[in-house]
Amino acid sequence: MSFGPEFGKVVVFGVGLIGGSFALALKAAGQVGEVVGFGRSLATLTQALDLGIIDRVGANPGQEVSDADLVLIATPVGQMPEIMSRIAPYLGPETLVTDGGSTKADVVAAVREHLGERAGQFIPAHPIAGAENSGAAAARADLYRGKKVVLTPMPENSVLSIARVRSAWEWCGAQIFELSPAEHDRVFAAVSHLPHLLSFALVHDLAVRENSELYFNFAASGFRDFTRIAASHPEMWRDICLANRGALLGELDRYRAQLDELRDALAKGDGAVLEKTFDVARTARRAWDGNKTK
Amino acid sequence: MSFGPEFGKVVVFGVGLIGGSFALALKAAGQVGEVVGFGRSLATLTQALDLGIIDRVGANPGQEVSDADLVLIATPVGQMPEIMSRIAPYLGPETLVTDGGSTKADVVAAVREHLGERAGQFIPAHPIAGAENSGAAAARADLYRGKKVVLTPMPENSVLSIARVRSAWEWCGAQIFELSPAEHDRVFAAVSHLPHLLSFALVHDLAVRENSELYFNFAASGFRDFTRIAASHPEMWRDICLANRGALLGELDRYRAQLDELRDALAKGDGAVLEKTFDVARTARRAWDGNKTK
Repeated sequence: MSFGPEFGKVVVFGVGLIGGSFALALKAAGQVGEVVGFGRSLATLTQALDLGIIDRVGANPGQEVSDADLVLIATPVGQMPEIMSRIAPYLGPETLVTDGGSTKADVVAAVREHLGERAGQFIPAHPIAGAENSGAAAARADLYRGKKVVLTPMPENSVLSIARVRSAWEWCGAQIFELSPAEHDRVFAAVSHLPHLLSFALVHDLAVRENSELYFNFAASGFRDFTRIAASHPEMWRDICLANRGALLGELDRYRAQLDELRDALAKGDGAVLEKTFDVARTARRAWDGNKTK
Repeated sequence: MSFGPEFGKVVVFGVGLIGGSFALALKAAGQVGEVVGFGRSLATLTQALDLGIIDRVGANPGQEVSDADLVLIATPVGQMPEIMSRIAPYLGPETLVTDGGSTKADVVAAVREHLGERAGQFIPAHPIAGAENSGAAAARADLYRGKKVVLTPMPENSVLSIARVRSAWEWCGAQIFELSPAEHDRVFAAVSHLPHLLSFALVHDLAVRENSELYFNFAASGFRDFTRIAASHPEMWRDICLANRGALLGELDRYRAQLDELRDALAKGDGAVLEKTFDVARTARRAWDGNKTK
């Protein structure tokens, strides 16, 4: 008895780091027959072809998705609604769709608006595998190995369709978790979106000073670590902040309240409050790091 | 014609990472005759002896500093006033003193209070060479090589005494800069003390939640970089924050105003302000990183 690949035809919208690595991983696992790619830039699509990420550049999205087993939308979240509305009328009855967006409540809302009765075929996903580089050239078959992928299933999804999309991400080597879309967005507002905002804010605040060179001249390794994420892509992060505005505002306000408390302690010279806060943070940070592969 | 070491006798208070590395570097450069160490812990002093960091454990500070060429006070800043007042009456007329503290206006104030007429013999310094590890075992002869050391001379210091202390740090391989104490404290409040406070605050805010495990579970590489400094020593950072309270409060308020602006933009959905802020930050961060050895 022999088995063919689990997915005969996979269509990828956006063949950069996220989409390209997904395609390469499924190919490396022998679990895909053919990968068809769509993208805004012909240069990127040609590169993806040359790199063996995709087998074909798609011409007509509606036609390609009608007989696809799996569709991955790996574009910036802002472009997803348009893609959804273009493919909605043609989506095959057995075709499943997943995505690679960093926010989920907005994707779910777009799915319901643009896929309508086909919404159940879309299983939202967030692969936690950023990298400093982006683009097709940065794609790697092992990008997702050992990384986390969060699925945020909707009530419309069948158990079987969730299992099948889970399986695709598992073939990529990822560890799969499930959260509700709202829960996902709250968690990532706190551990990812807020830190990016804070890091951007710090560097901006220094950069706009007349004597900014003096400051940057003495910035050292702690500054380097703290601000590494301030070198992230401005447009992408603008979109993430806007897409997750509600949860991010909540986290930002909570954080501002925390800063207010520290400001009070500092103004009063209350070293005990400062030390307690720092100590709780250090203990938690060390425990967290101890749980990770270093 | 042959030259002996530039410093016949060096006394080091605090033989941990900063003091120990200073001693090792001067020894490696052949610029010190004898190093005498003082410290609060006999275990550390014994270790420093075993590691060849010091040649002798000092018994009587007053006696040891009376014929020393150079004294380095490399203890936490909070302990410096007591050391200054103990050595003040015995300080030889040619003996110079420097320190390794991260804040300078408070050190200068203590110098004037406790050294009195001998204040001119103290040339304050801040070596920018933290490391994740501390203690005598972490000391290295090359810790300061290529690193920056900021001297914050006082009007009381003679040109010659500044040059001599500068020379000691240069023998350690450091690049020397001069700032006024107030200027130093403003700069480091912005590029070091504030980021530490912000990073501690973020981790603390997550750690005190009932469901903190959920959050930490999905924290990834951006979080790791941003919070690395939240694993720093709570007591040391409490002291730095308190010692540099004035400048740090100024920086914190400036930063809070910046966050308020970003909050407004976010609440209004003003993507242009967000993108502009992120873009200015990214450009500055990349330019800064390009100027550094990677």
